[in-house]
Amino acid sequence: MLTYYYPESHRWQELCTRPSLQNENINASVNAILLGVKLRGDAALYEFSERFDKCKITSLKLPSESIRDSGKEISKPLKDAMELAATNIRAFHASQFESVNFVDTMPGVRCWRKSIPIAKVGLYIPGGTAPLFSSLLMLGIPATLAGCREIVVCTPPNRGGNVAPTIRYAASMLGIENIYTVGGAQAIAAMAYGTESIPSIDKIFGPGNQWVTTAKLKVQQQGTAIDMPAGPSEVLVIADAQSNAAFVVADLLSQAEHGADSQVILVISEERGKAIDFIEQINENILAQLALLSRKNIAEEALSNSKIILFNSDYEALAFSNFYAPEHLIIATENARSLAENVTQAGSVFIGPWSCESAGDYASGTNHTLPTNGFARSYSGVSLESFMKKVTFQELSKEGIIGLGPAIELLAEAEGLDAHKNAVSIRLKTLQND
Amino acid sequence: MLTYYYPESHRWQELCTRPSLQNENINASVNAILLGVKLRGDAALYEFSERFDKCKITSLKLPSESIRDSGKEISKPLKDAMELAATNIRAFHASQFESVNFVDTMPGVRCWRKSIPIAKVGLYIPGGTAPLFSSLLMLGIPATLAGCREIVVCTPPNRGGNVAPTIRYAASMLGIENIYTVGGAQAIAAMAYGTESIPSIDKIFGPGNQWVTTAKLKVQQQGTAIDMPAGPSEVLVIADAQSNAAFVVADLLSQAEHGADSQVILVISEERGKAIDFIEQINENILAQLALLSRKNIAEEALSNSKIILFNSDYEALAFSNFYAPEHLIIATENARSLAENVTQAGSVFIGPWSCESAGDYASGTNHTLPTNGFARSYSGVSLESFMKKVTFQELSKEGIIGLGPAIELLAEAEGLDAHKNAVSIRLKTLQND
Repeated sequence: MLTYYYPESHRWQELCTRPSLQNENINASVNAILLGVKLRGDAALYEFSERFDKCKITSLKLPSESIRDSGKEISKPLKDAMELAATNIRAFHASQFESVNFVDTMPGVRCWRKSIPIAKVGLYIPGGTAPLFSSLLMLGIPATLAGCREIVVCTPPNRGGNVAPTIRYAASMLGIENIYTVGGAQAIAAMAYGTESIPSIDKIFGPGNQWVTTAKLKVQQQGTAIDMPAGPSEVLVIADAQSNAAFVVADLLSQAEHGADSQVILVISEERGKAIDFIEQINENILAQLALLSRKNIAEEALSNSKIILFNSDYEALAFSNFYAPEHLIIATENARSLAENVTQAGSVFIGPWSCESAGDYASGTNHTLPTNGFARSYSGVSLESFMKKVTFQELSKEGIIGLGPAIELLAEAEGLDAHKNAVSIRLKTLQND
Repeated sequence: MLTYYYPESHRWQELCTRPSLQNENINASVNAILLGVKLRGDAALYEFSERFDKCKITSLKLPSESIRDSGKEISKPLKDAMELAATNIRAFHASQFESVNFVDTMPGVRCWRKSIPIAKVGLYIPGGTAPLFSSLLMLGIPATLAGCREIVVCTPPNRGGNVAPTIRYAASMLGIENIYTVGGAQAIAAMAYGTESIPSIDKIFGPGNQWVTTAKLKVQQQGTAIDMPAGPSEVLVIADAQSNAAFVVADLLSQAEHGADSQVILVISEERGKAIDFIEQINENILAQLALLSRKNIAEEALSNSKIILFNSDYEALAFSNFYAPEHLIIATENARSLAENVTQAGSVFIGPWSCESAGDYASGTNHTLPTNGFARSYSGVSLESFMKKVTFQELSKEGIIGLGPAIELLAEAEGLDAHKNAVSIRLKTLQND
């Protein structure tokens, strides 16, 4: 890892640079895929599966038995672990329901908001080498809790044209019946436009590679909502000489193994001294732990682009973290709780030595679909609300329009909007004549 | 207005068609403007102002006296009306604060969410013929309530290079100090990229014409968040023979006067009979009221594209409204309150004869920045939350990681992610050795 000592704030921007995501080749390919699916529907999907997934599928929709019976293909301990994770995720997301709050802004003027499920949602679940059933739990649980009427899952087929049993089992746990073996940009196109087999939906969720992300951004421009823009996953760890170096390195590596483009940043505060010794411990631990990983090469490559940044104080360390706006922030110092109070920009925050990112990735209850690439400045992670929209309501009584009407008339007149004014005037006149 | 009798549901899609928004000429012009501002900053802004706003400005930022002293240019009754509107808007949006809710998903596993203001926001306020100070209230009030650190307002200069006193006064009411006399796509570019005078911001809000909307969508792709995609404003009114035809027409016209592309739909339920007589009353009232409007020509043009749609029952009328997903929905029937219970897709709902859209447009307290163009299927209107992001936090104790750890290990292993597993294992081992 590259090490930076006490960088001044004018250099921070440069230290926050993420890998560039735009790629002209991808752009053109994705445009062609979107158009293909739009014009030729299912036929295009079969063709793209053969071309990209090296797999000749004969039906797009998974048969219901293959979902229903998936439990037989999974060990009991793994099923129990999935159930535990689901219980925690459900508990945390269920706590996000909002009750309707009636506000009488004036006598006779009652306003309120109501959360209503988005009717049709599509969940994209990456497959291939690592079938991410945890993403199906993270998206499917809030979708079912919210009460979305139609939940469509798209996931790429493996070479045999099938879908990993863990993904099928996660769907069966949640009562999700519509799984389509379609991946990549073509899956996003299918959910956005609809095909003969796959219904068009209102909002698309889920992680994916650059093709998937590019396709999501493009259909968003055309009117299909998406969860958020996405980039490579990232973690920033704030530590000091008193932190457990082995834990810190384990956390850094758990991010690094995601992909060669993963972003891993270790910010060290020298507030309590001995930072240089700590950096040495970190480097030793990296060597020792890296050697044991199955995805060693990927992690190594990610680390080669990663950074250790040293600051004089907790204050500066946290200021840099807020500036970077990491997707995941682990605070591994003794005063983690008080530092966490001052976090202003991060996707999800892990406090203290026992709160590893893996906990939130899988099972503690928080959502792991989080804003990367600095988007934590302005976006929230996925939550129950992501699957609902909030509709405002108002009801004015006669008293309400009599009290508020004259002000509305003046305001509409000042904006030169006669008819807006008249909608009030005609009511006030009727009431005067009553 | 065109009248449709009892359309079957397979024809609904066609009846919901909005005006097409994409325009290749606009696309190319907006690209050029964005690039100009990105490369040449303020110099490009001065040049575009001269070209598009026909106005030679000498400074981009409004002098603070011109905001501070704006009250002198406004009548006392109008100031009072603005204050009343602001009080109601503030009350409704303040009710949207969420308290932090700690959830112990398991013993020793505590998760919570905290709403944190977005640091830097930009508000675009259209100017020109109708300076929409109401939009500044609707965006500026939740922005200040949320606690956004930096609030930047861009609004086009009038021919004299100045900004309408109502907009300046609204800013002074809210304590907003940074108003820049820049409009159009160039204003969006300035807020997204930053220039010598105008700081770059994290999220852009506000209505605008097609240039502004196109520019917002483009900078969104590049990483600046926006409030929502926008199209021409629209209203759908559900009425029956017992509704007050004069009120209904006044509401339809208040939408029609916005622009020739405004969408106005009157849905009539025949459930309580006499619908044909009611349509006659509607047409008579249109003739009578239209004649008196200053924006008669605009309203007339909008009405020529508008529709009256007759249905046999309340049920079908509401089903069509939900299918259309209107920005504004006025329910003018006696049973408005019970129909409103079953609204699933709309931006904002106005219940009963005294709740005219103008109330929500200006002063009742609800926000008037709402999803158009069918986006109410998946987007909410602007609210306090639009100016905040929600960050999740978690803190596991030793007990927490001991209870949850083994499940995480199994889940990570099943996804083939060793290092994720190891981040837990290394902690569990340390605890065993304690």
